[in-house]
Amino acid sequence: MNNYNKKSIALHKKLHGKLSIESKIKLNSKEALSIAYTPGIGEISRIISKDKKKARDLTIKHNTIAIVSDGSAILGLGNLGAEAAIPVMEGKAALLKEFANVDAFPICLNTQNTEEIIKTVEYIAPVFGGVNLEDISAPRCFEIEERLRGSLDIPVFHDDQHGTAVVVLAGLISALKVRNSGNDVKIVINGAGAAGIAITKLLLKYGFKNIIVCDSKGIISKNRKALSFQKKIIAKNTNKNLKTGLLKDALIGADVFIGVSVKNIVSEKMVKFMNNPIIFAMANPDPEITFKKAMRSNAFIVGTGRSDCPNQINNVLVFPGIFRGALDNNIIDITDDILIRIAESLSACVKNPTRNKILPQPFDPSIAKVVANAMK
Amino acid sequence: MNNYNKKSIALHKKLHGKLSIESKIKLNSKEALSIAYTPGIGEISRIISKDKKKARDLTIKHNTIAIVSDGSAILGLGNLGAEAAIPVMEGKAALLKEFANVDAFPICLNTQNTEEIIKTVEYIAPVFGGVNLEDISAPRCFEIEERLRGSLDIPVFHDDQHGTAVVVLAGLISALKVRNSGNDVKIVINGAGAAGIAITKLLLKYGFKNIIVCDSKGIISKNRKALSFQKKIIAKNTNKNLKTGLLKDALIGADVFIGVSVKNIVSEKMVKFMNNPIIFAMANPDPEITFKKAMRSNAFIVGTGRSDCPNQINNVLVFPGIFRGALDNNIIDITDDILIRIAESLSACVKNPTRNKILPQPFDPSIAKVVANAMK
Repeated sequence: MNNYNKKSIALHKKLHGKLSIESKIKLNSKEALSIAYTPGIGEISRIISKDKKKARDLTIKHNTIAIVSDGSAILGLGNLGAEAAIPVMEGKAALLKEFANVDAFPICLNTQNTEEIIKTVEYIAPVFGGVNLEDISAPRCFEIEERLRGSLDIPVFHDDQHGTAVVVLAGLISALKVRNSGNDVKIVINGAGAAGIAITKLLLKYGFKNIIVCDSKGIISKNRKALSFQKKIIAKNTNKNLKTGLLKDALIGADVFIGVSVKNIVSEKMVKFMNNPIIFAMANPDPEITFKKAMRSNAFIVGTGRSDCPNQINNVLVFPGIFRGALDNNIIDITDDILIRIAESLSACVKNPTRNKILPQPFDPSIAKVVANAMK
Repeated sequence: MNNYNKKSIALHKKLHGKLSIESKIKLNSKEALSIAYTPGIGEISRIISKDKKKARDLTIKHNTIAIVSDGSAILGLGNLGAEAAIPVMEGKAALLKEFANVDAFPICLNTQNTEEIIKTVEYIAPVFGGVNLEDISAPRCFEIEERLRGSLDIPVFHDDQHGTAVVVLAGLISALKVRNSGNDVKIVINGAGAAGIAITKLLLKYGFKNIIVCDSKGIISKNRKALSFQKKIIAKNTNKNLKTGLLKDALIGADVFIGVSVKNIVSEKMVKFMNNPIIFAMANPDPEITFKKAMRSNAFIVGTGRSDCPNQINNVLVFPGIFRGALDNNIIDITDDILIRIAESLSACVKNPTRNKILPQPFDPSIAKVVANAMK
């Protein structure tokens, strides 16, 4: 157990949870109670019952989102269940407050059944102005998000997919600027879970044409059998030359590696066979190849999820501002076009990108506003 | 529209909801993030995944309850739906914070189907240390509460039933002391919804034997046909003499009237036929008979739900302390015995009760502690 773990245990034992729910008004007099509660409140209920949309103006729906998880894919730790998801969702809620003044409440579900998750979120939706899906394993996460986007009249956003995709695209735009390259670079994405699929789709939408995706069995191509629904879509739109083989085969001559997979899967030798490469090794907490090793193998730019190396590629740059922007601008459908505008704005925050500085710092308090403004 | 309504609209338009969700820690540095979120948080998730009960100590489950409503019986206004319930549940959450430092979050359900409500609450339960059911119409509320008490390992409490029952019993204990009467008084309860049924059951449990319950069709007795399940139980245990007729017939010679029904249903003449009576007229906001009229008809003691008359009978005396006590003492099953202990303690707060002072003021900040202590 490392030092952060020990400090984290002490903190959580002391606080008993990281969030508190506060009243904006004191209810310590008959007058206050009569206005904020009965009998005055009756009129607010009547107004909303005549026009549900007024809840957006008159209640916490105005600024409150649900962070929904079933605990099936907690961080990189796997399926630990609903209770184990709570501290992580609390942290996410704390970040939303800190960086974008969004009120967020953790909903940790005691079911991992797709239909039950969808129904439950639909039933609890009235009080929320948005839904952030979190740490729900693939492929269920795709259907859950798509169906909820269809049925709810509030924004639904799966951060593990789209938050990651946006920050990767933002980093890649900057990195290609530094490398003086265009959209014709050869990109290899390793990992075809929630993040890998979403990154691939967004990069395709942005205009990258030369993409190969690998999963644990190797290169995905139209000729591979027994592909899942999402991987079939990926196979159709990537790997035009129907290349086969393993990750190491895909990487030969590639310009960009994007890893959302497992630690230590990329060797120094594999990097050497690439072409002056951009390496985004985002497995957490231990990347596909360490920053040091990748640089030693002559990588041109290296980014990881870690805060102790240059070029940290972290969703926290994206998701707080996305909900701020959606709530402020009443955006229900967070489209790929919006995601691309956000990535471009995020990349543009670094005016003169360098090999060691392609993205803003995760703790720059101005970033959420940049993201929200890009959604207007 | 009265003055309180106008002020309430202005307040809600300004605040956009009465609750905010705050982080107990600042997350504005890499160090803070590493301890409160990743990577430190991973260990907290691991600990909880090995022993779910640890969530009580390490997460907001420690002090957070859900206030669950389907909007089917909002205040006295009827079935206005989930969105219209939000401002009321927010107010309830604000009261729980103000009087008992309990964090409470509104869950307003977009379904009024008993099975769906039960399943939804079961699925979202992991993050909560308790459930307050609120403004759910009878008879569904009885089954929902009973089934959830059976399936969840956290306290489930329907305030409209038991909060009302406790405060009525507390007021009655004091009023009978002032009147120098015993448990043999003749009691008439008007209203056989959530509150009426719960009051009747608690008074029976306390030892009152001479009770008649009326609903909108008149006196409930074993001989009446087509009674609901709950009313059958009531019929079996009350009205031993199988009296028939209307409320006015039941009231002749009665010592106590307890109204949880509709306004103006009791006339001055009906009070005059009673026996030096104790009148609790709790229909909200307009009582079954006004304080003034009842006193003019020679009632001995009159209580109402109103804050502008003596003897306000208000659940706010009960529910904040009940959740404080349940969370602090890890009480899962809030039994009738516990409710009776609370009622006795609440009554004892008024050392020398008089005709105009049978209960403590709803805004006495010491009351929640009295209630919580009675649960030890």
